[in-house]
Amino acid sequence: MTRKPPVVLLTDFGHKDQYVGVIKGVIHSIAPQAPVIDLCHEVPPQDIRSGAYLLGVSYRFFPKGTIFLSVVDPGVGTDRRIVIAQLGDWYFVNPDNGLLTLVLEREKLKQVIEVANAKYWLSPVSATFHGRDIMSPVAAHLYRDPHPRKFGKPINVGANGRSPLRLLATKPATKGEKTIEGEVFYIDHFGNLITNIPSQMIPRSRQCRVGIAYKKLHRIVRSYGDASPGEWVAVVASADLLEIAVNQGSAQKELQAKVGDPVRVEWE
Amino acid sequence: MTRKPPVVLLTDFGHKDQYVGVIKGVIHSIAPQAPVIDLCHEVPPQDIRSGAYLLGVSYRFFPKGTIFLSVVDPGVGTDRRIVIAQLGDWYFVNPDNGLLTLVLEREKLKQVIEVANAKYWLSPVSATFHGRDIMSPVAAHLYRDPHPRKFGKPINVGANGRSPLRLLATKPATKGEKTIEGEVFYIDHFGNLITNIPSQMIPRSRQCRVGIAYKKLHRIVRSYGDASPGEWVAVVASADLLEIAVNQGSAQKELQAKVGDPVRVEWE
Amino acid sequence: MTRKPPVVLLTDFGHKDQYVGVIKGVIHSIAPQAPVIDLCHEVPPQDIRSGAYLLGVSYRFFPKGTIFLSVVDPGVGTDRRIVIAQLGDWYFVNPDNGLLTLVLEREKLKQVIEVANAKYWLSPVSATFHGRDIMSPVAAHLYRDPHPRKFGKPINVGANGRSPLRLLATKPATKGEKTIEGEVFYIDHFGNLITNIPSQMIPRSRQCRVGIAYKKLHRIVRSYGDASPGEWVAVVASADLLEIAVNQGSAQKELQAKVGDPVRVEWE
Repeated sequence: MTRKPPVVLLTDFGHKDQYVGVIKGVIHSIAPQAPVIDLCHEVPPQDIRSGAYLLGVSYRFFPKGTIFLSVVDPGVGTDRRIVIAQLGDWYFVNPDNGLLTLVLEREKLKQVIEVANAKYWLSPVSATFHGRDIMSPVAAHLYRDPHPRKFGKPINVGANGRSPLRLLATKPATKGEKTIEGEVFYIDHFGNLITNIPSQMIPRSRQCRVGIAYKKLHRIVRSYGDASPGEWVAVVASADLLEIAVNQGSAQKELQAKVGDPVRVEWE
Repeated sequence: MTRKPPVVLLTDFGHKDQYVGVIKGVIHSIAPQAPVIDLCHEVPPQDIRSGAYLLGVSYRFFPKGTIFLSVVDPGVGTDRRIVIAQLGDWYFVNPDNGLLTLVLEREKLKQVIEVANAKYWLSPVSATFHGRDIMSPVAAHLYRDPHPRKFGKPINVGANGRSPLRLLATKPATKGEKTIEGEVFYIDHFGNLITNIPSQMIPRSRQCRVGIAYKKLHRIVRSYGDASPGEWVAVVASADLLEIAVNQGSAQKELQAKVGDPVRVEWE
Repeated sequence: MTRKPPVVLLTDFGHKDQYVGVIKGVIHSIAPQAPVIDLCHEVPPQDIRSGAYLLGVSYRFFPKGTIFLSVVDPGVGTDRRIVIAQLGDWYFVNPDNGLLTLVLEREKLKQVIEVANAKYWLSPVSATFHGRDIMSPVAAHLYRDPHPRKFGKPINVGANGRSPLRLLATKPATKGEKTIEGEVFYIDHFGNLITNIPSQMIPRSRQCRVGIAYKKLHRIVRSYGDASPGEWVAVVASADLLEIAVNQGSAQKELQAKVGDPVRVEWE
């Protein structure tokens, strides 16, 4: 009677079409007992970097044993691999294209399997929708019997540094003697600018200034509510990353900020 | 084997980010048996009034005992209270900022608890995402054991008129001898203009005219289908409120209407 | 302990309002054990053709016995019928307005019931939201006891060609000696142009050219990945229909294409 951990979905399919629903139909057909939870389906089309961010800041809020099925797959139909990775206490099924970049920074990699055993796929396999025909049935069969080895052969992890792939484009923030240099990593629905600067990099004992574009913020506050409505704040927010926001407004709109814009923290 | 009532989510998180998914991860970690239903996540950012509307016209279609978790929280990180309210046969977990305004008009308030017992929260609690760190775990623990008292102390309801807070901005429609004065309260996805004029305020035995902006409608019809495509109608619609619509079109677009626009009903 | 097939929802309600959530509340009140899966809620308002497409390319990925509840209902409040149709191994509850057009082309029609028995509806029934008051409770009761006959009388199928209604507007692609003439049938979230030309109509042994607007594509490839980023492709994609796409881009945006645009396949 104990309910097993869920299958969690992350895709760039959006909500306009049938794609997410069909994936759930495939999973339900194979593993009708599996609770299925939507993490996000509005990853910008083929934007692996945003997908990696959303996965990296979310996975630890799900129970151990959760299976994350992530389909952001610009390489569908090419020879890019599909993998099952066991990282910390969680399972991940996705194309091996960098989606695991942030999770790899945070969790111990236990094993990676290259998905190859067609016995667990739909038949025939379309050339354009491996999310439906390969990855969903693999995630559903993995839910029923969590033994990745039956889906393919282990990849020799780290031996050649090839798999699982990390995104090269994301460079971590760098810390100098009196500065941190980082960048805007993700912009959320509220227009908050989330940087790649982790909270533990910021010296707590110092009064820090934060700069972005022509804005300079003279302190890092605890919460949006420590500012008046319309006021700018730099805050260490829920993902444990430095964030730049306008209380009850949109920092993105006011600054016309975009992903990759440089952000600097300074102290005396 | 009987399945308990669901936990129902209402937020302004949108679908672009991981926020809704993460909340479901937290709930599933604590109460894996809880059915979770999305009421709406597209409340305009920090728009308590729209949140109050959506909650007020929806709750009675869910089973008795349902727990509504509503996170529209512009005051996160300030000293605004978080409450559990028992109203009629339903439970509500939300910031005490007016979200319950319409439910309070319709149901008997049985008790209000100020959430204070950190034992039931995630740890550490972030300063910017109490939806994830306080309200979701409280809703999940309430699902497992529906005794609000263990989460904090009762608030002395009504004694000082302070809690639970009602929105002051929403003024009810007023009825004169031959008129009702109201306003547009909410505009839906189809562009229908939903007013704050309840059906029972409208005299059924009279031929009523309805006016908005430069439009005057000469009768209230039973259904959109009583008009030709493209024709304007005033109709008492599914929320038991007077609604102004264009059959198979968008009244909002044609009138450039917005929330707060005055609406008048007249009869001889 | 065996879990029954799901109830699957397709509507034009969007995500902005409470409508989808309320429908789930009604279903959960009647059939709390029913797994409910969202197929899509972003059908353009009252666009029966898109609804028919989404249903037609999706149903077969769900388990036998699945109940599809489809609410795209421009005729609500008129005398259009509501039906339960059994097609192949699936059940469909929807207004009889053409939503089943594609499923009727693919599956054997076993029976059609005109929904009439008010015992299974909410009371009172609003004149504007039969999705909530009639169709949802019917789908939920059908889940509990899958005998369509108790909801109303059978319609004499095919005798007069009237019910269930097929959309007249959708004309199938036509094949000549050295050409196929078709059209754009649906445009998805990625901007891919999905035509009404089925894969089996295309001669596999020939080198085919595909034309749309001022574009001429000189071969049909197996997958998006067979082209360079930014390159145009014609591909037989996941719905077994010819599709025109830009690898890692949007064909819709580049061509300003719209539903109904003519598409031609030629060979020597």
